[in-house]
Amino acid sequence: MVDGEVMEVRTLWREGSTIRLIDQRELPHEFIITGLETHRETADAIKDMVMRGAGAIGVAGGYGMAQAALEAKNLSLNDFDEYLREAAERLKDTRPTAANLFKAVDRCLEASVGLTMPDRVKSILGEADRIAEDDLNASRLIGEYGSQIIGNGFTVLTHCNAGALAFIDHGTALSPIRFAHRQGKKVYVLVDETRPRCQGARLTAWEMEQEGIPYSIIVDNAAGYFMRRGEVDLVIVGADRITANGDTANKIGTYEKAVLAKENGIPFYVAAPEMTFDLSLGDGDEIEIEERSAEEVRGMWGKGEDGKKTRILITEAHAHVRNPAFDVTPTRYITGFITEKGILKPPFTKSIAEAFRD
Amino acid sequence: MVDGEVMEVRTLWREGSTIRLIDQRELPHEFIITGLETHRETADAIKDMVMRGAGAIGVAGGYGMAQAALEAKNLSLNDFDEYLREAAERLKDTRPTAANLFKAVDRCLEASVGLTMPDRVKSILGEADRIAEDDLNASRLIGEYGSQIIGNGFTVLTHCNAGALAFIDHGTALSPIRFAHRQGKKVYVLVDETRPRCQGARLTAWEMEQEGIPYSIIVDNAAGYFMRRGEVDLVIVGADRITANGDTANKIGTYEKAVLAKENGIPFYVAAPEMTFDLSLGDGDEIEIEERSAEEVRGMWGKGEDGKKTRILITEAHAHVRNPAFDVTPTRYITGFITEKGILKPPFTKSIAEAFRD
Repeated sequence: MVDGEVMEVRTLWREGSTIRLIDQRELPHEFIITGLETHRETADAIKDMVMRGAGAIGVAGGYGMAQAALEAKNLSLNDFDEYLREAAERLKDTRPTAANLFKAVDRCLEASVGLTMPDRVKSILGEADRIAEDDLNASRLIGEYGSQIIGNGFTVLTHCNAGALAFIDHGTALSPIRFAHRQGKKVYVLVDETRPRCQGARLTAWEMEQEGIPYSIIVDNAAGYFMRRGEVDLVIVGADRITANGDTANKIGTYEKAVLAKENGIPFYVAAPEMTFDLSLGDGDEIEIEERSAEEVRGMWGKGEDGKKTRILITEAHAHVRNPAFDVTPTRYITGFITEKGILKPPFTKSIAEAFRD
Repeated sequence: MVDGEVMEVRTLWREGSTIRLIDQRELPHEFIITGLETHRETADAIKDMVMRGAGAIGVAGGYGMAQAALEAKNLSLNDFDEYLREAAERLKDTRPTAANLFKAVDRCLEASVGLTMPDRVKSILGEADRIAEDDLNASRLIGEYGSQIIGNGFTVLTHCNAGALAFIDHGTALSPIRFAHRQGKKVYVLVDETRPRCQGARLTAWEMEQEGIPYSIIVDNAAGYFMRRGEVDLVIVGADRITANGDTANKIGTYEKAVLAKENGIPFYVAAPEMTFDLSLGDGDEIEIEERSAEEVRGMWGKGEDGKKTRILITEAHAHVRNPAFDVTPTRYITGFITEKGILKPPFTKSIAEAFRD
């Protein structure tokens, strides 16, 4: 994924009890691989968004459970279970909206049921690694299926970063764009900067640079302008949680782009693996929306004139702020879901249930 | 307008050949009154957005012509006219989208026709001062008329800054909010931060603080979220140019908010004085849209950790960017225009023509 070399570096991976990962807070200015030694460090890193994105924090959740299992491997069976349950709570408490995180942690917990030591540990490690492989395979298939809806010469608008950095590699929303580009199609990407944390401007643009895919960053306010001028052929976004009827929680602003796409007759697709679908929820009203710190809106960080990482304050220090991190796009604005099982079409309650029934 | 004292300081005013004004690039961190000595300095200040906003740059355009007249007052009549024509071009070339600027400059040019010296100079000075007074009176009337549509307990969403800082005082979009607040109504304002230059986060929030009107800054991506939750009763924005049919050019992102308001059944009003209506244009397709520097999107300025004004780079230094500064909201998304002649309702071609026929 770096300098055009796909798979050279994954977004995060496990080496024994250490998680290695790209520190996404430093991109695009610095490319730093960092390490997390304990499940507590991993939980903090998810909270602080050292890595972010539905898939990546799912995999990090699984790896965090693997770390917890290794930390507790010499305890009694009861103490081990207690330790793992506490670790699971700690990891889940970091980001309330992402389905992948919850599912990954639960998969690891369930993997150990009924086993004795040391198989309990081994099984959790195996499950954590399987979550990462599943993520990678799903991203690949999403790229293959999704590339079929990208015509030669298309301009695709995307919001936030549902790219390689949000998963293990390839990503979801960006995976079809990558595959179309590799198939030799001409693709141009309009990248919403995605305030407040600017994952579009920082991460998606960086990924496009790495792959040599033409792009332009636009402020979030400009997406409608380009849609109305007929300069957008297709919108593809990722998702943090999708309910049984297809309502989709994703980065704040996704709902705005979906409404604008519909108003301008532009297809609007959500790319996401099974891990992001939460069939326990009937519709989007049941999704908890994370509100993040006012500081994200009051300020911004980047590279200062001295070349060092700097934070600036845009507003007054005490300015009043509301900062919902996600919104819910109702199913009626969504043209289809690009999944590892193919492209799901309305009626979504039916197509989602059929794709992901066990 | 400062610290709750309305009219204590105007946004800009003329003292002989000097224009005094609030340096809006320094707000909200510093309140600095600066001076412009020549029409060339004034043109540069408009371009660099030392002052901005439809009304303020209109008044600045008029004052710039007054400066030019004073600079040329000892020239022959022919040379004077030539000097004034050049000054008019220079002032108009600064910002292509704003109607007020063009009209103000033309009003000053026309004011001198047929007169001899020194009446020519005197007449231009008088016209420039009249533009400022007209602006002030229009803002007051817009506040009075507009306050009638703000119910007690309303939440009003606004975009960018069409406040006192965008005019001489009171503003357009913010003037009805001010008047409603002074009438004792409870009003709460959701302020779009308005990337790329964050006039909402910097200027509108500052104006609300000064008046003691409750507000919260939100990222532009979050406006739809609050609308869909039923937390917005009314949207009021300003305008940079309005065509004969009611199509409205305003800060980039206005179109997005208008579409979202309509989708959610929320009234969407544009507040603007006659100076902003350009009846020479049939519809919005004829409006030239200014594209500003990529640097506005690549970076951001604010107060650094050392307390000094600092610019940071968010993206890579060479990142590709598109940066349209305005968009056009088609008339079908607009509920009404709040003007100094009252509130204009559809069909707008008729109501606009009736309000502003000479």
